Amino acid sequence: MRLSHLAYGGDYNPEQWPEAVWEEDVRLMQEAGVNLVSLGIFAWAKLEPRPGEYDFAWLDRVMELLHAGGIAVDLATATASPPPWLSHQYPESLPVTADGVQLWPGGRQHYCPSSTAYRAAAQRLVRKLAERYRDHPALVLWHIGNEYACHVSECFCDESARAFRNWLKKRYGSLDALNAAWGTAFWSQQYSDWEEILPPRKAPTYPNPGQQLDWRRFSSDALLECFDLERSILREITPAIPATTNFLTNFKPLNCWTWAAHEDIVSLDSYPDPADPLAHIDAALNYDLARSLKGGQSWLLMEQAPSQVNWRAQNLVKRPGQMRLWSHQAVARGAEGVLFFQWRASRAGVEKFHSGMVPHAGAGSRTWREVVALGRELRKIDAVLSTQVQADVAILIDWESWWALELDSKPSQAVRLLDQVRSYYEPLYRRNITVDFVAPDADLSSYRLALVPNLYLVRDQTARTLEHFVTSGGIVVMSFFSGIVNEFEHIRLGGYPAPFCNLLGLRITEFAPYALDQQNVIITDAGQHFPCTLWSDVIDLEGAEALAQYGDDWYANRPALTRHRVGRGEAYYLGTRPNEAGMDWLLNRACQAASVEPAAIVPTGVEAVLRQTADTRLLYLLNHGATAATIALGAPCTDLLTDRRHIDSLTLESQAVAVLSS
Amino acid sequence: MRLSHLAYGGDYNPEQWPEAVWEEDVRLMQEAGVNLVSLGIFAWAKLEPRPGEYDFAWLDRVMELLHAGGIAVDLATATASPPPWLSHQYPESLPVTADGVQLWPGGRQHYCPSSTAYRAAAQRLVRKLAERYRDHPALVLWHIGNEYACHVSECFCDESARAFRNWLKKRYGSLDALNAAWGTAFWSQQYSDWEEILPPRKAPTYPNPGQQLDWRRFSSDALLECFDLERSILREITPAIPATTNFLTNFKPLNCWTWAAHEDIVSLDSYPDPADPLAHIDAALNYDLARSLKGGQSWLLMEQAPSQVNWRAQNLVKRPGQMRLWSHQAVARGAEGVLFFQWRASRAGVEKFHSGMVPHAGAGSRTWREVVALGRELRKIDAVLSTQVQADVAILIDWESWWALELDSKPSQAVRLLDQVRSYYEPLYRRNITVDFVAPDADLSSYRLALVPNLYLVRDQTARTLEHFVTSGGIVVMSFFSGIVNEFEHIRLGGYPAPFCNLLGLRITEFAPYALDQQNVIITDAGQHFPCTLWSDVIDLEGAEALAQYGDDWYANRPALTRHRVGRGEAYYLGTRPNEAGMDWLLNRACQAASVEPAAIVPTGVEAVLRQTADTRLLYLLNHGATAATIALGAPCTDLLTDRRHIDSLTLESQAVAVLSS
Amino acid sequence: MRLSHLAYGGDYNPEQWPEAVWEEDVRLMQEAGVNLVSLGIFAWAKLEPRPGEYDFAWLDRVMELLHAGGIAVDLATATASPPPWLSHQYPESLPVTADGVQLWPGGRQHYCPSSTAYRAAAQRLVRKLAERYRDHPALVLWHIGNEYACHVSECFCDESARAFRNWLKKRYGSLDALNAAWGTAFWSQQYSDWEEILPPRKAPTYPNPGQQLDWRRFSSDALLECFDLERSILREITPAIPATTNFLTNFKPLNCWTWAAHEDIVSLDSYPDPADPLAHIDAALNYDLARSLKGGQSWLLMEQAPSQVNWRAQNLVKRPGQMRLWSHQAVARGAEGVLFFQWRASRAGVEKFHSGMVPHAGAGSRTWREVVALGRELRKIDAVLSTQVQADVAILIDWESWWALELDSKPSQAVRLLDQVRSYYEPLYRRNITVDFVAPDADLSSYRLALVPNLYLVRDQTARTLEHFVTSGGIVVMSFFSGIVNEFEHIRLGGYPAPFCNLLGLRITEFAPYALDQQNVIITDAGQHFPCTLWSDVIDLEGAEALAQYGDDWYANRPALTRHRVGRGEAYYLGTRPNEAGMDWLLNRACQAASVEPAAIVPTGVEAVLRQTADTRLLYLLNHGATAATIALGAPCTDLLTDRRHIDSLTLESQAVAVLSS
Repeated sequence: MRLSHLAYGGDYNPEQWPEAVWEEDVRLMQEAGVNLVSLGIFAWAKLEPRPGEYDFAWLDRVMELLHAGGIAVDLATATASPPPWLSHQYPESLPVTADGVQLWPGGRQHYCPSSTAYRAAAQRLVRKLAERYRDHPALVLWHIGNEYACHVSECFCDESARAFRNWLKKRYGSLDALNAAWGTAFWSQQYSDWEEILPPRKAPTYPNPGQQLDWRRFSSDALLECFDLERSILREITPAIPATTNFLTNFKPLNCWTWAAHEDIVSLDSYPDPADPLAHIDAALNYDLARSLKGGQSWLLMEQAPSQVNWRAQNLVKRPGQMRLWSHQAVARGAEGVLFFQWRASRAGVEKFHSGMVPHAGAGSRTWREVVALGRELRKIDAVLSTQVQADVAILIDWESWWALELDSKPSQAVRLLDQVRSYYEPLYRRNITVDFVAPDADLSSYRLALVPNLYLVRDQTARTLEHFVTSGGIVVMSFFSGIVNEFEHIRLGGYPAPFCNLLGLRITEFAPYALDQQNVIITDAGQHFPCTLWSDVIDLEGAEALAQYGDDWYANRPALTRHRVGRGEAYYLGTRPNEAGMDWLLNRACQAASVEPAAIVPTGVEAVLRQTADTRLLYLLNHGATAATIALGAPCTDLLTDRRHIDSLTLESQAVAVLSS
Repeated sequence: MRLSHLAYGGDYNPEQWPEAVWEEDVRLMQEAGVNLVSLGIFAWAKLEPRPGEYDFAWLDRVMELLHAGGIAVDLATATASPPPWLSHQYPESLPVTADGVQLWPGGRQHYCPSSTAYRAAAQRLVRKLAERYRDHPALVLWHIGNEYACHVSECFCDESARAFRNWLKKRYGSLDALNAAWGTAFWSQQYSDWEEILPPRKAPTYPNPGQQLDWRRFSSDALLECFDLERSILREITPAIPATTNFLTNFKPLNCWTWAAHEDIVSLDSYPDPADPLAHIDAALNYDLARSLKGGQSWLLMEQAPSQVNWRAQNLVKRPGQMRLWSHQAVARGAEGVLFFQWRASRAGVEKFHSGMVPHAGAGSRTWREVVALGRELRKIDAVLSTQVQADVAILIDWESWWALELDSKPSQAVRLLDQVRSYYEPLYRRNITVDFVAPDADLSSYRLALVPNLYLVRDQTARTLEHFVTSGGIVVMSFFSGIVNEFEHIRLGGYPAPFCNLLGLRITEFAPYALDQQNVIITDAGQHFPCTLWSDVIDLEGAEALAQYGDDWYANRPALTRHRVGRGEAYYLGTRPNEAGMDWLLNRACQAASVEPAAIVPTGVEAVLRQTADTRLLYLLNHGATAATIALGAPCTDLLTDRRHIDSLTLESQAVAVLSS
Repeated sequence: MRLSHLAYGGDYNPEQWPEAVWEEDVRLMQEAGVNLVSLGIFAWAKLEPRPGEYDFAWLDRVMELLHAGGIAVDLATATASPPPWLSHQYPESLPVTADGVQLWPGGRQHYCPSSTAYRAAAQRLVRKLAERYRDHPALVLWHIGNEYACHVSECFCDESARAFRNWLKKRYGSLDALNAAWGTAFWSQQYSDWEEILPPRKAPTYPNPGQQLDWRRFSSDALLECFDLERSILREITPAIPATTNFLTNFKPLNCWTWAAHEDIVSLDSYPDPADPLAHIDAALNYDLARSLKGGQSWLLMEQAPSQVNWRAQNLVKRPGQMRLWSHQAVARGAEGVLFFQWRASRAGVEKFHSGMVPHAGAGSRTWREVVALGRELRKIDAVLSTQVQADVAILIDWESWWALELDSKPSQAVRLLDQVRSYYEPLYRRNITVDFVAPDADLSSYRLALVPNLYLVRDQTARTLEHFVTSGGIVVMSFFSGIVNEFEHIRLGGYPAPFCNLLGLRITEFAPYALDQQNVIITDAGQHFPCTLWSDVIDLEGAEALAQYGDDWYANRPALTRHRVGRGEAYYLGTRPNEAGMDWLLNRACQAASVEPAAIVPTGVEAVLRQTADTRLLYLLNHGATAATIALGAPCTDLLTDRRHIDSLTLESQAVAVLSS
C-alpha cells in the first residue's frame, strides 16, 4: 500500500449525506490526520440503481475531493449488500437456512454464496469500477466485499446443493470414495447417485459428520470463490493495487489460513467489548493471529469503534483514553494502520447508534477530541512501520480441526476450541510472552516452543511435522482430545492419540468427560494442587514420565500431565484442564525448558510488546490496569509519544501508553 | 349504552351447551344480578356453518330468552375466529410469520389482517347480523371482533406485502420520499421499484428500522381497517347502537390512541396475575389508561376472570375477596361495568380450565357465591355512574415512540417503555396521586404536572406542545433517551435531546448505557444517595441547574438530574434510572412544585381514588395489603356498600373495600 | 426365543467394517460369552443399494460366520433408516414438522410414518429378508424397525393429513360425532367437511385439545401400522420366530400398552446417565414397566452402553463396576438378557464416541475387560430364567391420560405425569417394595395396593374397575387432578373428581395450583408436618375422614389427605404433592394397611429384588451406594456369583452385586 505513514481513517459513506457535507468532511479529516478512508462499501444501489444502469458521477466527485484533500482511498467493490432489484429479479439468489427459511432483503449480505445471479452481477459491477478508477491517484487498496460470512456463512438452497455436489465430485472423484469418507455405512446412508447428496439440512437427528465437515469446508470455499472472482478481475485491470477483505475476530466460518493466502494484505475488524474487563486480552490474541496469517506481515485494523457499538444488548462507551490505548495495542502487535467504522455517525439506518469519528453531536464532543488527538499522535511513531514483531512461541490452530471438534455428538460439548486456545494464550499474555499462531502444516523451525491445544483432527503430515520439531530440539505441549481423527473425521484406532503416542510416550484407552459442575485436582511432582475441570484422560505411560497426577476419582494417582524426552526436545501432554494458575505453572515450566523470555518485566496489568528490526527496538507499554504502574527500564529510553528522552523509569497512568525507543 | 345500572355480566357462549341449559342460565343470571352479556363472540361457524348458508334461529332463541329475562346484549360480530371452511376455501387467508411459517386453523384468529377473502366474508356476516337484530330490544352494544392482534398482530404474506405497498404509496407518494424516510442509502437498500418493497421478513441481520417502524404502523392500521369495515356497516344499519372492541392490557401492537377514536366506548380485558403481589398496580395503570383513551369517558371492564385463567404456566386462583376487590378497583378508576370471561366454564376446548361465573362444580362453589354477592353489591353504587375521575398529573405515552424505542440496534435493549412508565406510575400510585395518560398531541392545559418517560421519537409539534405547557406554568419531568429521533426515526442531530435542549437548558453529547449488573449512585442537592442503573447521560448545562449528580465513574460530579425554570414553569430532566426511592423523591418534589395532592392520606397498601361531580364526592378505599388498615376520615361519611352512616374512621380488612360518600 | 442361557451380546454392524475384521469379531464374541447379536439394524442401503436391487451375499456370510461361532441372531428388518434413494425418488416420504419444516436425510428415521412410498419399500425389503433367512438356524428373533418414534414421532404433511382423516372417520363415523368430541363449538371450529380437518399444525395459539389428543393417538397408531405391516409378513413366512421392537425409557409418544400387545417379547433400550446419582432408580422404574407391559413376561435389555454415550452434552463414563451393577439390575427386574449398543465402537459416523463392547483402543481396555467378565458371570445365574418377579403393589399408568394431562392450557404445566409417578415409585423403591405397572383396564385382583398418580383422563370402565378393587378389599391411593375428563377430554362436571367422588367420599369444587416458588405444609393426624408444593385441592368431605390438613393459606385446616373406607377396602386421596418424606409416610401407611412387605430389609443404598418360582427364591442385592454395606441374611444362602455357600451375612462393596439362593 502506497502510504508513507501509519494509516488512519475509517469507513466513509458519503452517499448517506448531502453533498454539502462532503467538503466539511474533508476539512475535518485533515484536522484529524486522516490519510485513508474505505469508500463505497455499501454503495452498490447508488452505483447501479437499476440493473445495468450505472451512476459513477457522485463517486467521481468524492474521489476527487478526497484526493485533493490528500486522503487515499481503500475502494470497496461494493458487493457486500446487493440492491433490492437483484433479489426481486432473481429470488433464487436469496439465502436459505438449514430449516428452509428464506432470508430476505432489508438488512445486508442477503445472497446465496453459490448464486450465479449474484456472482454475475457482482463481477459486472467490479469490472466497471476497476475500469473507471484503475488510474485514479487516490486509489491505494481494494476492499473486496465486506465481512464475508458475518451473517450468511452458508446457504442450503438447491443451487448451493448443486455447487456442493460439484465441489464433492472434485474432492472425491467417485461416489465410492465419498461413501467411504463419510462413513455412510453407518445408519444406512450410502449414496447410489450424486444427485441424492444434499446440504446438511435440518434432519430428524444429527446429520452425518463427514457431510457436516465437508459442508463447512465447502461453505468457506464458496465464499472464497466469490472473493476470487472479484480479485481476478482487479488483478487483471489493476495489477499494482493490493487487495484485502476485512476479517472478523474469533471467526470460525472462514478458514483464514486459506483465505489470507489469497489476499495481499490482511485486514481485521475488531470490536472488544468495553463491558468485558478482559477484552484487551482477546484483542491481543486476534491481533497476533492477524499478524500470523501472512507470516508476520503487517496488517490493517480496518474497523474499530470510536466509542460504543449498536449491536450488543447493552452498548457501553469506551471510557476516556480507552480508544487510544486499544488503538496502540493493535499497532504494537503488527498493525500498519488504525481505521474506524465509521467516519460520521449515521442519522438513519440500523447502525445510527454506532459511534462515529464525528458523533451526532458534532465536533464539540469527547469522541471527536480523542479522534483528533490520536491521529496527530500516530505521526510520531511512523518508525514502527519498518519493524517486526518476533515470537519464540507458536500456537497451532487449524480451522478444519476447529470445525470438526465442535460438530455435534462429541464426548463433551464443553470442549470448545477458543476456550482451550485462550487457556494457553492468557497466561503467556500476562507474562508478556509474545506468541505467533501457526497453521498445521507450517514450518516450525523458527520457534522454540509449540503449543497444541486440542488438535482433534490431524493429518499425517502434521503429526510428522510436530515429531520433527521435537526431535530437532523443540518443546511441544499438547492437550487432551488431540490426534483423535483424520481429515475424514474417522477415528484413528488403537488407543488415543494414535498419531502422537510415540512422540508423547503414552497411550490412552479411555477419556472421562466431566459434568459441568464436576471437578478434580492435579497434584504436581512438586506437590502443588491445581483444580481441574472438563475432562480427564486415563493415561498409560509408555516411556513418558508423570509430572502431575489426578487427586480424586477412580483414576486418582494416574498421570494427568506427562513429559517425554525425544531426540533433543521434550513433548508434554496434558490430560485435563487445570485452572488458570495451573496453566500458568505448566506454561512457565515449558517456557523455562525452551528458554523463552518475556518482552519486558512489568507490573501486572501492563502489556509489553517489542517491535524491532536489526537496529531498532521499540518497546510498547500499555497500561490496561485500573491504577498507575511504575516500570523500571533496563536502559535509558526515549518515549516517542511524549518525546521525553533518557528516561530510566516511567509511571503509566491507567489507560496510558508509552512507545520506548532504546 | 342504554343501561340504568352498572353493567354486570360476562361472555355468554350458549352454542357450547345444549338448549336445555339456557333457561337455567337465565335464571342464574338473574340470581347474580347480571344485566349484560357478550354474545356470539365465537359463533361464526354456528351462524354460517357453510359458506353463505346462515343459521340464526338458535341465536334468535337466545336473544329472546335473554331479553325476556331482562338481560341486555353486547352482540358480537363473530368475526374473531373464522370457521374452518374459510381457510379451506381460501388458503391464502391464513397468516404467515416473518420466517415464512404458515399459521393454520385449530386455534383462533387465524386470518391475515389484509386478506380480502377474510374481509369480504366478515363483512357479509356482519351485514346479515346487523340486518337481523337491528331492532332487537336486547341489543345495546356491538362487540366488533375480539382482542384484535392478541395472537396475530401482523402477517408477512404476499397479500400483506401488496397492502403494505399501497399503504406506503399513500404515506409517501413517491419512491424518493420513501427512500429518504427509510434511509435506504445505508447498506445499499435503495428501492428502484415499488414492487421490490416487502414486509420486514426474516433477514440475515436487523432489517431497516424505517421499514420496521412503518410495518408496525401499517399492521395496526390493517387491523383497524378490518374494524372499520365492520363498524361502517353497523353504523349504516344501526346508527344508534354504540360499538366497541375489547383491548388488552399493556398492549403494544395496536396504537390505542388511534383505535379509541374509532370506538364509541372503550372496553378492556384485564387479567392481573394473582401470583404477582404488585398485579393491582399494573391493573390500576391500565384502568387509568383505558379511562384516558377517550379523554376521561367511562369504559367497560369487558373481561376479567372470576378466579383462575388457563393460559399461564401456573394459574393461581383469586383468593377469597380478591375478585371483589379487583372489580371495585376498575369501577373506582372509571369503569361503568364489570364483566367476566365467561359465564359458564367450558367443558371442552382450550379454555375449559379458565374459571367461569358458573364453575364446573356448579352453584355450590365459592366462585359462584362471590359472583352473586358482587352482582348484588354493585347495585348499591350506581351513583358512581354520574361521576368522573379527575387528575392533575399526566403521563405522556406514544405508541409510535414505543415501537421505535424497542426496535433492535438500540444503545441498550434494557430500556423498555413500560418499565420506564411504571417507574413513574408506581410511586404516584403508592401516594394515591391519580394520573391520566395523554397522547403526544394532547392539550395539556388541564394538568399541572406532565411526566415524559423516554419519549424517544418526537414530532416537532409535540416538542412545541411541551414547551408551551411549561412556559404557561406547567411542570415537566422528562427522562433520558427522549427527543432522539423524528417520526422517520432519523436522529435529530446536534446534541441530544435536540428538540428539548432549549426547554431543558442543557445539551448531551454522549450517553453511557450500563451493563445489566452495573450501577452508579446519584447524590442530590440535599445530600441523599440513590442507586441508579441502566443509563447515564453525560450532560452539559446550558442554563439549567443540577439537582443531583453522579457519584461514580468517569462522569462523576456531572449532573444527573437538572431543573430549568422557563416562563412560569419548570422543566426537570433525569439522565438515569434511580431506584424506587429515588423516583419517589423526585416525583414528590415535582408534585410539590406543581401543588398536586393525593386523593387521601391512607396507610400503606390502601388504594384511594376519588370519583366526583360538582356535588358528589365518592372516595374509594381498597385494601390490597395483607393486614387490616384503619383510616381516619376527615369528615363523617356514609359507606355505600355497608350503608353505615356518619362514620369518622374505618377499619378495612385485607381485601376489603369501602365506597364513601361525604 | 430359543436360547438356553441368559442372552448376552449387542448390536452388530459388520457392514461398517472390512470383512477381515469379522472373524476377529466372532473370536472376541466367543471370548466374551456373547450368544446373541442384533444384526442389520441400519443395513437397508447395503441390502438394497438401489431401488429393487438387492445384495444379501454379505449378510449371508455374516450369518454363517455367526452361526458357526455359536452366536444366535436377532435379525433386524433394517427399515429404521431408509437409504438416500428413497427420499430422492419420493420426496413426499420425508417428514414435516408442525411449523412446516421438512426433515431431510442425513441422520436416520427420516420417513413420514404414513408414507405409502416408505411403507411399500419397507414391506418389499422385509419380505425379501424373511424369505431368504426363514430357515437359517442362527435366526432366533426378529427386530422390527428400531426405536420407533425416537426422532420422528409425528408428521404434519399432507399425506399424514389424509391418513389422519381416515383414522378419524373410522373413530367417529360422522362429522357430527367428531365435532361433538372435539368441542368445536368453542372458538368457531366446527367442521363442515372432512377435507377441512388437518393435523394440529402451528396455529396462532393453542390448537383444539381434542384434535391434539386424537393426533397423539393417531401418531402412535400410524407407527404401529408400520410395525404391523412388517410383523404380518414375518408371521406369514416365519410363524415360529418371535418378533420385538426396542422401546425407549420414559417414552411418551408410543402407547406401550397397545404396542406390547402386538409384540411377542418386550425389549428395551436403557441409557441411565452416570452423571445422575439417582439414575438407577429411574432405570428400575423402567425395568418394572418393561416387565409389566406383557403381564410379567420376561423382557430383553436390548441396548445399554458399555460405558459412555455420545448424545448428551457431557457424556460421562460408567465407573468401574457400574456397568456390571446396572446389568444385573435389569436381570433382577425381569430381563432375560443383557445386550449393548454396540459390539464394536464405530470409527466414523454420528455415534463413533458412543462406547462399544470393543473400544477404539481394542481389547487392552477397561471396558473390554468388564464386558468379558460380565459375559462369563452371567452363565452362573441362568437359574433366573425360570423365575418371576412378583409384586403386591400396582401403579396405574395410562398413555392417553399422560398425553391429555400434558397438553397445553392446563391449571399448571408443572404437573407432569412422570414426576408424579416417580413421587410414588421412589419411596417404594427405597423400601425395596417391588411394584408392577398396570394399564387402566387391567385386572387388579392379584394386587393388594393400587396407586393412581394423576389419572387425569378416565374412562367409565376404569372408574368401575377401581371401585370394584376397593370394595373387594383393595387399598387405593389416588392423587389430585385425577378423574377430571373423559376420553374426549371433556370435563366430567359436577365437582371433581366426578367419577371417583363416591369412592373417595369427597367432592372438590376448586383446585389451587401453586406458583413454582410457593409452598404450603400438611399436618397429619399424628401431628407431623410435611412441606407440600405444586397444588392444593380444596376438599369437601362427603364420607371420608381427613388424615392430614393444610397448614397455611386460605384453605388452612381443610383436608389435604383423606381416607374412605368402602366395602372391605380403603380409598386414600391426596390433594397436594408432599415432599419425599411425606410421600414415604403416606405410602408406608398404605403399605401397612395393605400388608405389603419389602423384598428384604437392607441398608440404605442397597437395592433388593426377589425372583422366584414355587420352589426357587433368588434374592438380588445391588449396592448403588458410595460405601460398603453389610447385610444380615435371615437364613443361610449361596451367592451364585461367588459360589460362596452357607453365608449368614454379606458385605457388599460399593457397586457390588450378590445373587443369593436360599
